[in-house]
Amino acid sequence: MAGTDTSLPITLAPGPAIILCEPQLGENIGTAARAMANFGLWDMRLVRPRDGWPNEKAVAAASRADHVLERVRVFETLEEAIADLKLVYATTARSRDMQKEVLGPEEASINMAQRINAGQGAGLLFGRERWGLLNDEVALSDAIVTLPVEPAFASLNIAQAVLLMAYEWRRHGGPGKDLPFGDGLDEAAPRNELVGLFEHLEGVLDQTGFFTTPDKRPSMVNNLRTALTRGRFTSQEIRTLRGVISSIDRRHERPNPNRQKPATDKPITD
Amino acid sequence: MAGTDTSLPITLAPGPAIILCEPQLGENIGTAARAMANFGLWDMRLVRPRDGWPNEKAVAAASRADHVLERVRVFETLEEAIADLKLVYATTARSRDMQKEVLGPEEASINMAQRINAGQGAGLLFGRERWGLLNDEVALSDAIVTLPVEPAFASLNIAQAVLLMAYEWRRHGGPGKDLPFGDGLDEAAPRNELVGLFEHLEGVLDQTGFFTTPDKRPSMVNNLRTALTRGRFTSQEIRTLRGVISSIDRRHERPNPNRQKPATDKPITD
Repeated sequence: MAGTDTSLPITLAPGPAIILCEPQLGENIGTAARAMANFGLWDMRLVRPRDGWPNEKAVAAASRADHVLERVRVFETLEEAIADLKLVYATTARSRDMQKEVLGPEEASINMAQRINAGQGAGLLFGRERWGLLNDEVALSDAIVTLPVEPAFASLNIAQAVLLMAYEWRRHGGPGKDLPFGDGLDEAAPRNELVGLFEHLEGVLDQTGFFTTPDKRPSMVNNLRTALTRGRFTSQEIRTLRGVISSIDRRHERPNPNRQKPATDKPITD
Repeated sequence: MAGTDTSLPITLAPGPAIILCEPQLGENIGTAARAMANFGLWDMRLVRPRDGWPNEKAVAAASRADHVLERVRVFETLEEAIADLKLVYATTARSRDMQKEVLGPEEASINMAQRINAGQGAGLLFGRERWGLLNDEVALSDAIVTLPVEPAFASLNIAQAVLLMAYEWRRHGGPGKDLPFGDGLDEAAPRNELVGLFEHLEGVLDQTGFFTTPDKRPSMVNNLRTALTRGRFTSQEIRTLRGVISSIDRRHERPNPNRQKPATDKPITD
């Protein structure tokens, strides 16, 4: 999905830190950075990335999320990486035999928003590609966050897990559910214009013999009006539709230069 | 995030079709298939995939989402790909100059669920990597769906856009917000056990001189009890904590075989 407005400045609003524990592939660090940027996060922390830092492959995969990559901090231990945080959630797709609360992404985001709005740091832990977080890493967290996945196919790529958490963060802790653009639909035409369309159409149909018997006319008219009302036409669209009706209505009155094979037309019966 | 329970069967519940228009990279088809599988979708349709079908790179990237890949259908035109559907939404990150409704993913999922629960087919269109959907493809849809992204960094990878839509589908049209596992927290201990812990601790502290003056004791006790109540301890945890208290309390009564360097211990002052 293209659509970035590069004229807009990147803002670094308060949000949770994203902490990747021993990430193995630079590509995943990069795509996670991109996912963070999509939903306005920027504080990425790496604990012992396997291939060191900086990482060329991360840069290539980040699709210009430079404002995230430039701020990445690398730590030797998870304890150091979360030292300044007051709320830490561990993401995992596996049930742990631990006396720890389990939250969904929405609930977790609401909780994080409360802390962050009060000026307290919060963060989300993500585990290594192959086996996720270790139990002693989960033990350092306040609660477990997991996703409402299909249990028979529960394994998410790290960047995708980061994306979903960033998405929920934005909806509940960030700017909310605001979409980047609205529909800009023009207003529906005033009702008299719609009635003008109806009467125009019905008048033409009276001429063409559309209404087979006078007693069926009222219900047929109602059905037509119902269908045509549902579209919430604009004034412009009503003008266009009336042009369409007029054009069809008058086609036998004048030669149409665009018509190539008039012989194949249905005979005009009225 | 590991965690797939491979003993569970894959179910093919009714859900929206995911239609990729002219996808360029096999990797993206594969990761989109994986994202669908994570949230229980399985009906993938491809319109003119650049590198043909089947595609080795898609298989490699799909992380064994075989039940999705096996069912992929390839079409020559978008019109054919959506022929059986009664509700079609176009995903895009760009505002179009079109008289079309714009929905968020949640609202779109709720609408799709209504149709699908009534036995009608619904589908979501996703555009090509470089420039998304063409306007004439968007024109074939009932409405536009877009995501509440950061406008200054709005471009999502296709698989990530598919993931978010599949996630919202599952929450609103599928099994809901059910998490794959609960916290299984043991029940909090009955209150008499908690009071037993308090009295044990306070009795020990009376001996150690913790309560500096008798008039301060009640408020100090209250503060301790408040802090210790917040943890909602289980019976097992209370037994453990009482063991901890006893162990510390009695450490000067018996030699500790684990202690290597008793000389460095603080002197016992009580």
